[in-house]
Amino acid sequence: MPTWKLIVEYNGTRYAGWQSQGAGSKVKTVQGELKAAAEAVFGRPVELGGAGRTDAGVHAIGQVAHLKVASSARPPRPRDLMFGLNDGLPADLSVRAVERAEDRFHSRHDAVERIYTYQIATRPVAFGKPYCWWVKDDLDLDRMARATGKLVGMHDFRAFASKPEPGESTLVDLTQLSVGQTGDLIVVRVGASHFLMRMVRRLVGALVEVGRGNVPPEALFDRFVARPPKVPTEEPGIWTAPPAGLFLDLVRYPGDPAAPTAPVPAILFR
Amino acid sequence: MPTWKLIVEYNGTRYAGWQSQGAGSKVKTVQGELKAAAEAVFGRPVELGGAGRTDAGVHAIGQVAHLKVASSARPPRPRDLMFGLNDGLPADLSVRAVERAEDRFHSRHDAVERIYTYQIATRPVAFGKPYCWWVKDDLDLDRMARATGKLVGMHDFRAFASKPEPGESTLVDLTQLSVGQTGDLIVVRVGASHFLMRMVRRLVGALVEVGRGNVPPEALFDRFVARPPKVPTEEPGIWTAPPAGLFLDLVRYPGDPAAPTAPVPAILFR
Repeated sequence: MPTWKLIVEYNGTRYAGWQSQGAGSKVKTVQGELKAAAEAVFGRPVELGGAGRTDAGVHAIGQVAHLKVASSARPPRPRDLMFGLNDGLPADLSVRAVERAEDRFHSRHDAVERIYTYQIATRPVAFGKPYCWWVKDDLDLDRMARATGKLVGMHDFRAFASKPEPGESTLVDLTQLSVGQTGDLIVVRVGASHFLMRMVRRLVGALVEVGRGNVPPEALFDRFVARPPKVPTEEPGIWTAPPAGLFLDLVRYPGDPAAPTAPVPAILFR
Repeated sequence: MPTWKLIVEYNGTRYAGWQSQGAGSKVKTVQGELKAAAEAVFGRPVELGGAGRTDAGVHAIGQVAHLKVASSARPPRPRDLMFGLNDGLPADLSVRAVERAEDRFHSRHDAVERIYTYQIATRPVAFGKPYCWWVKDDLDLDRMARATGKLVGMHDFRAFASKPEPGESTLVDLTQLSVGQTGDLIVVRVGASHFLMRMVRRLVGALVEVGRGNVPPEALFDRFVARPPKVPTEEPGIWTAPPAGLFLDLVRYPGDPAAPTAPVPAILFR
């Protein structure tokens, strides 16, 4: 089946997340909107899946999707397909790039690394409400940076998953984790082979607790990762950062260049 | 009366503009929200006025307001006043700075220059709908730049005013006008002693017509400014740029440093 790889950008504010809720559901999802736009272009059912199942209110700069269509005599050129899709999409969801992919390409199974960016505002930014978490307390960035080091690597992150699926491995290879500041924004960048449910928002929430001085930097690794809790604990779940600050930034596939590691804001306010 | 100067930032999307519609009106305005927040802080009526009457949907980074309160025994310190105001304001409207001013300070009468920034997106930016005008046509920036030069200076801009008030002078001293590009954004920066109603959005709309190739660069000055029309004309009114891309950037008072002239985006998208 002709297959395309799409790079998708969206403001997640209006959406109940990426994942389609199934036929008949009135809930607006990114996957549902994209699939409808693709079916309007092709005039037939399509298969459309994404690399990351972002939660309600979470944004994406570089979500990757695969689009498969039962073979048509003349598959459209990627650029024409991109314009056709964007014509049918609302303004807060757009396709930034389209390329033809191998027929067997699957955006989620084939991905080897996902990178997320999280934005924390240090003052009330009038333009930033949908794109930041405004933390009123002063955050100690040195403490936060000290907390990140030991977390990188292959570890059992079950303490940072909201509900590990039965039988699902909670071993995750954390490839990068860093904290930086640009103007009034503190930016957290985190990459991993894959993420467990809510894991990014729990990691960010835990880092903020460290930055506030409520938790020692080494505690994140020592308490939650080195000896992962046997039964679910209240923390770090209660620290979960809100969805609005989170952006799926980049998804990597075999052969892609290494991901940049500098924490750069997704949206910068003057 | 104790008087303060406030620097105010807002996302204009939800507001029917700056100007309060008067007591009893249900329409949400920036002035109305600010005045209510100030009256909650002081527990008595206040006078609150702004430097620029921004339209519905227009934003501000550096709106200036004056706040006057019938003398109180202990006027609050500026920093405490700022925190008090922000506590009572919604997330899309915030006070960035407060300083004590001369009792006779008036934010609109005393202002000597206003600077606006306008953002045009060259692609559909999913995060940018409230903050940009997406122009699908290719714009020729050289042509747009050529159109700006002769407009700077003291001229009769009546052709760019939606309704000149009877008796109001339409002579405006345009202090700067420039066009630049940063990534997927084309940014117009324009400064003047003051602006007529809709003047910025009509200037931007006219520059876009030049950029599209529909109007020669020299026509803006020659047709509309050198010999201003005696009776209202259809153009440039029909070219008016939408409000979402417009930001009141800076208001200058006597003694303030000269305004920067580089066109810099208000909000930058990756």
